[in-house]
Amino acid sequence: MSSPLTLAPWLSRYDRRDFPRDLLAGLTVAVMLVPQGMAYAMLAGMPPVTGLYASTLPLVAYAVMGSSRALAVGPVAIVSLLTFAGISALAEPGGADFLALAGILALMVGGLQLGLGLLRGGVLVAFLSHAVVSGFTSAAALVIALSQLHHLLGFPLVAKEPVPILLEVFRRLGEVQPWTLLLGMAALLLLLTGRRWLPRLPMPLVVVVLGTLSVALLGLEQAGVRIVGAVPAGLPRPALPHAPAEAVWALFPTALTIAFIGFLESIAVARSLAARDGERVDADRELLGLGLSNLVAGVLSAFPVTGGFSRSAVNHQAGARSGLASVVTALLVMLTLLALTPLFYHLPQAILAALVVAAVIGLVDLREPFRLWRVRRADALSLGITFLATFFLGVEPGILVGIGFSLAIFLWRSAFPHVAIMGRLADSEASGACGVWRNVLRHPQARVHPRLVVLRPDASLYFANATWLRDVVERALAARQGVAGLVIDLSAVNDVDAVALESLEELMHELGLQGLEVHLAGMKGPVGDVAARAGWRERHAERAFHLTLDRAVAAAEAALARREATGRA
Amino acid sequence: MSSPLTLAPWLSRYDRRDFPRDLLAGLTVAVMLVPQGMAYAMLAGMPPVTGLYASTLPLVAYAVMGSSRALAVGPVAIVSLLTFAGISALAEPGGADFLALAGILALMVGGLQLGLGLLRGGVLVAFLSHAVVSGFTSAAALVIALSQLHHLLGFPLVAKEPVPILLEVFRRLGEVQPWTLLLGMAALLLLLTGRRWLPRLPMPLVVVVLGTLSVALLGLEQAGVRIVGAVPAGLPRPALPHAPAEAVWALFPTALTIAFIGFLESIAVARSLAARDGERVDADRELLGLGLSNLVAGVLSAFPVTGGFSRSAVNHQAGARSGLASVVTALLVMLTLLALTPLFYHLPQAILAALVVAAVIGLVDLREPFRLWRVRRADALSLGITFLATFFLGVEPGILVGIGFSLAIFLWRSAFPHVAIMGRLADSEASGACGVWRNVLRHPQARVHPRLVVLRPDASLYFANATWLRDVVERALAARQGVAGLVIDLSAVNDVDAVALESLEELMHELGLQGLEVHLAGMKGPVGDVAARAGWRERHAERAFHLTLDRAVAAAEAALARREATGRA
Repeated sequence: MSSPLTLAPWLSRYDRRDFPRDLLAGLTVAVMLVPQGMAYAMLAGMPPVTGLYASTLPLVAYAVMGSSRALAVGPVAIVSLLTFAGISALAEPGGADFLALAGILALMVGGLQLGLGLLRGGVLVAFLSHAVVSGFTSAAALVIALSQLHHLLGFPLVAKEPVPILLEVFRRLGEVQPWTLLLGMAALLLLLTGRRWLPRLPMPLVVVVLGTLSVALLGLEQAGVRIVGAVPAGLPRPALPHAPAEAVWALFPTALTIAFIGFLESIAVARSLAARDGERVDADRELLGLGLSNLVAGVLSAFPVTGGFSRSAVNHQAGARSGLASVVTALLVMLTLLALTPLFYHLPQAILAALVVAAVIGLVDLREPFRLWRVRRADALSLGITFLATFFLGVEPGILVGIGFSLAIFLWRSAFPHVAIMGRLADSEASGACGVWRNVLRHPQARVHPRLVVLRPDASLYFANATWLRDVVERALAARQGVAGLVIDLSAVNDVDAVALESLEELMHELGLQGLEVHLAGMKGPVGDVAARAGWRERHAERAFHLTLDRAVAAAEAALARREATGRA
Repeated sequence: MSSPLTLAPWLSRYDRRDFPRDLLAGLTVAVMLVPQGMAYAMLAGMPPVTGLYASTLPLVAYAVMGSSRALAVGPVAIVSLLTFAGISALAEPGGADFLALAGILALMVGGLQLGLGLLRGGVLVAFLSHAVVSGFTSAAALVIALSQLHHLLGFPLVAKEPVPILLEVFRRLGEVQPWTLLLGMAALLLLLTGRRWLPRLPMPLVVVVLGTLSVALLGLEQAGVRIVGAVPAGLPRPALPHAPAEAVWALFPTALTIAFIGFLESIAVARSLAARDGERVDADRELLGLGLSNLVAGVLSAFPVTGGFSRSAVNHQAGARSGLASVVTALLVMLTLLALTPLFYHLPQAILAALVVAAVIGLVDLREPFRLWRVRRADALSLGITFLATFFLGVEPGILVGIGFSLAIFLWRSAFPHVAIMGRLADSEASGACGVWRNVLRHPQARVHPRLVVLRPDASLYFANATWLRDVVERALAARQGVAGLVIDLSAVNDVDAVALESLEELMHELGLQGLEVHLAGMKGPVGDVAARAGWRERHAERAFHLTLDRAVAAAEAALARREATGRA
């Protein structure tokens, strides 16, 4: 990986002919980011202006430290939801404590991501199955949409959980605020369908302008439409947030979740964009970039950020060549903070809610569960359970249940794996190749050996399937008459631990006592190393290390022949 | 498995010529069990007599329901320690609440074991690695020995944890009660070495008799030697124990731990004994036997029991032919309760402590950690971490940490597995076999293909190593010049999940776009099924399903030849 110490790697080899494209991309993203930033701030339970704070220097920080050229960092829906879920349990949304905790949360997330990056911890996200992420994302998107419902309906809700929210809405439909609903629905319609017939227009900006104008001109504020109101002008002043230690501890699980989920979303986007350019991204370098970015967000009284999908795609499409595009975006947002905040006074909250809903609706993936169900049901189950846990138990328990369940499935399948009874294909059938053995259940033409049982356990052997192997072998031997020996094909055994190896040796010993010839074939290098350290080269040199099944079978036959010769003599 | 409904399977086909041997075995075990029962009761924080209660009908219950012929059920050191550790947090040892909770705990353990047995849950113990069990047992043995120290020294200790106990003992060595220490040491000496020069004598009985006599005759009681005192005569009266619901809930983790650890110890003993007789035990049947046994213990105001190693060995050695031996043992213990309890009045507690220490000292396994370290360090690490966690954090956290760590190691190795770059052995070298490909690092004579990279990932493919595979392939392709294609040997891929399969297909697609010929060989049946359900038979019929590497390579060469032909044309 490029050393974490080379800052802004793109800067040294910057080609100034790229500047116009970086400029255009930065501008395009800024136009999208200003409204989205305020909207996601609202989703996170923060004042809209903090969403703009989060869209300034944090972007520069990533540009300096990160490795992806087109990744657009900033407030993102799911991270904002996690932020809200984590902090709202400790403080009143919008209150001073809430803001302080949001800053602290960003600092914790940044610290965790930096630490993970320095420790090469990026690999850990491998344990987040795509099935789990898909279920989590779909459920989180629905939770987010429901959380915005009251902004669209125009009356505050008591309920906080998805189901109660729906019930309360049905109960209080009468209280719907018509102008608010109208604005929200119109905005939603524009955002979801507008791209079709007006592809060149930046829809988020359009709905913000139209919404603000309609409120200002029609005086909808008096008609009860909630507006953003005064947005303080000026850049955020750097300051370290303060909060009681116990609150900080209580935030730790949330920080950990955001550090991983945020990184996962970001790295997925960065990878897919890099792939299109035939480039690669360095996971650990990404962690450093996001970590620094969150540390900066923390001291700017903002909230956690990450690389978002939609804006990054736009950034890439608009031709971003380097981190400079993000720097341009950040400068434009700062300009907005300095000069344009008065324009947002009449911006209706319903418009921001519509922006959020429009952004997350695309995250609900209805096809994936069915595809997984068709391919392998266990994976569809992981997705479904993660979805249900996230929707009904909450975002943090949801992701934990998902990870646990998906790993449990893998462990279960490894502990009780498939085993094949092998037969040999006639060399002619194997067309060209010879000495080809196959599972007799799948290749009926494969002939089993008359006096030897040939088994192929299809799993790495470890403590959890050591007993299983004994049972399988004993059953296989009991199932046939006149068996004089056993050959175990280890070609599918990729790894073995000391426990399983000892249990295998015991088995060989016991079968030997029963007068059976036991031979092992196709042992792989790593397995052979473990066996060698356990002294097998001395104890089982002539039985355990046959290169091929043919040779193991030949050896067993020879040994049987010798026995019978001595028996007759 | 023999249906759980056929009770006392040994009874129907009982051969009365076996009776003398069952009688002798039953007697021998009873002589051992009476003192041990009282000793383990003391260890569990229970009055000694309850150890005798636990040694009556619970044994009969197992004989009726269990499947092992020689397993001797009853109080056992580690289960007694778990009982003490679990309940002493909720009630004062020896008090009425403590007794009630012990009964409830036995009922819970029995219920859990019965449930597991009916649900065929016996397989779950597979996830307890032998390395973990070894580390846990050694640490628990030390904790038990330390818990008995104050009985041997003759003064009560304030400290409860291992390390504080040691410190307090060193601080208060002056308060040692000489007669008590003398009795204890003498008993320990007899128990540990006596078998050598007096193999025929039942040492536990001997030390109990000698200890009791010396106290009675020398009046050591006045000299400060603590004695068992009045042991109530008569059989236990069946009764349902009562306790507040929250206490019951608090006991659940302990019940779960005992249900598993007790079963694990028991099944291990039963299996090793059955193996010597060329028999097999049914794990689920054993669970039913132990479960019923614990339910009975619960209503006899006793505490959890299981099949113990030492007494079972003695039972088997003495020639036990059937469960009748256990019935005999139970009857003799009842006889003791009815007639002999007055004899235990002067029995010194130091003798019971010596019995416990002598029993557990053999459980400390010093060789295993070194053996594992030699064979595979990760397993030695599991053992060591389990040992430390059990010794310093306590028995229940210890076993949890051990299970988690051992599974984490397996997951980690599966997520970042070994991959081999393959070369072909000349048919002559492969002596007889042909088409033999091997890891070039281990078989330098194996020749790599001039234009194709041949890789063999040694792992089941699942979500956690999907990204790893992409990286490995990309690195392997980048490492060589003039590569025109890739052949992946799937013979080591035992299982695949939908996530990894999709990622593999993406990889094939991207490499195809880069103009590389990608072929897969040796796909196993179960993997092929998943691929087929994902539509690979339609999309990749001619690339993904080659039977052997030779054929995959031939196909790739042919495709390359065709390309060049068309290229030239």
